[in-house]
Amino acid sequence: MQENIEYAPIGIINTPFKSLVKIPIQASIAKDAVGFITVFDEFVSGLKDLAGFSHIILLYHFHLSNDYSLSVTPSHDNANRGIFATRSPKRPNKIGLTVVELIGIKRSILSVRSVDIIDGTPLLDIKPYIESIDSIKTSGQGWLNEQVANTKRPSHLDRSRKKTRSSSVTKRD
Amino acid sequence: MQENIEYAPIGIINTPFKSLVKIPIQASIAKDAVGFITVFDEFVSGLKDLAGFSHIILLYHFHLSNDYSLSVTPSHDNANRGIFATRSPKRPNKIGLTVVELIGIKRSILSVRSVDIIDGTPLLDIKPYIESIDSIKTSGQGWLNEQVANTKRPSHLDRSRKKTRSSSVTKRD
Repeated sequence: MQENIEYAPIGIINTPFKSLVKIPIQASIAKDAVGFITVFDEFVSGLKDLAGFSHIILLYHFHLSNDYSLSVTPSHDNANRGIFATRSPKRPNKIGLTVVELIGIKRSILSVRSVDIIDGTPLLDIKPYIESIDSIKTSGQGWLNEQVANTKRPSHLDRSRKKTRSSSVTKRD
Repeated sequence: MQENIEYAPIGIINTPFKSLVKIPIQASIAKDAVGFITVFDEFVSGLKDLAGFSHIILLYHFHLSNDYSLSVTPSHDNANRGIFATRSPKRPNKIGLTVVELIGIKRSILSVRSVDIIDGTPLLDIKPYIESIDSIKTSGQGWLNEQVANTKRPSHLDRSRKKTRSSSVTKRD
C-alpha cells in the first residue's frame, strides 16, 4: 500500500529569491514579488482557458529541503509544532502550495504576483483558484490564534495577504 | 532538470464513495459526506497542533487516473478546457487538492466533512488551511463565469461550498 508515487516537473518557477536566506518572511515584501513560471513545451497546450482566472494555485517541489521532520519550530513562533500543522518545507512529501495572482500568460510563460518561492523551484501542477470552493471562512486556526494574540493583532481584522503572512505560518521553518 | 520526484503515501482516505461513478458531482451531497483519514503510524506525531484548525487542505494522489490529457471536458460543461484550467484528475502529475472541515482527530484517525474523494485514495500531505493566506477574493474565474451565467446563478451570491460545486469544476471530468 505504500508504493512510491512518481511525478516529474511540468515547469520551473523563477523568482527574485535566489537563496533560502533571502526569501522574505514578511509578506509585505513577498506580496509584490513578481515571478515567472516557464511551463515545459510539452504541457503548454494545457494552459488553455487559464488566463481568465485572477488567481491560481501552484503546487511545487521543495527541492532544497532534505530530510523531513515531524516536529518543527515555525518562524515567528517559539514552540515545536507538528509538521502537518505548519506549511514548513520539511514535510514527508515535500509539496509546496501557494496561491498567486496571475498577471498574464504569454505562450509558455506565466507572470505571477505574490510568490514566496525560491528561484528555480520545480513546478508540479497548476490549478485554477475557485473562490467558491477554495475560499473558506474558518472557525479555528489552532496555534496561529495564539500567535496573533501574542502580536496583539486581532485575527478577524487580519485577512489581507500583506498583513497576515508576517504573523502566520511561513513556507520555511 | 526533469528528474523524477518520488513521494510515498502518508495515509489513506476512506469515504462513502466506493467508485468513480458514485462520487457526487453535486456538492449538495458531498458537503455532508464524512470521511476518515488514517495516517500511517510513523507520521502520527506530525499531527500535533492540527486539531485546532477548523479546515485542512488534503493533497492526495488520483490513483485511479491513468493517462493524462492536456484537454478535458469538465462535467457540466460542453467545451474542451486546458487541463490546468480545471481540477480534473487527468493531469500530468495526478495531485488532487480538497479543503475539508476537520471534525476531530483520534490518534491516527482524522474525521473530516466535505470529502469528494474516492474511497482508498492515497494521502500525500495535510496542511492547515489558513484563512488569511488561503482565502482570497478573486476578480476572475475564467470559463467558470460563462458556466455560472449559463445556469442563471449570479456568481457573487454563490459562495457556499454547497451551492457552488455543482456548477463549478469537479474533481472528475
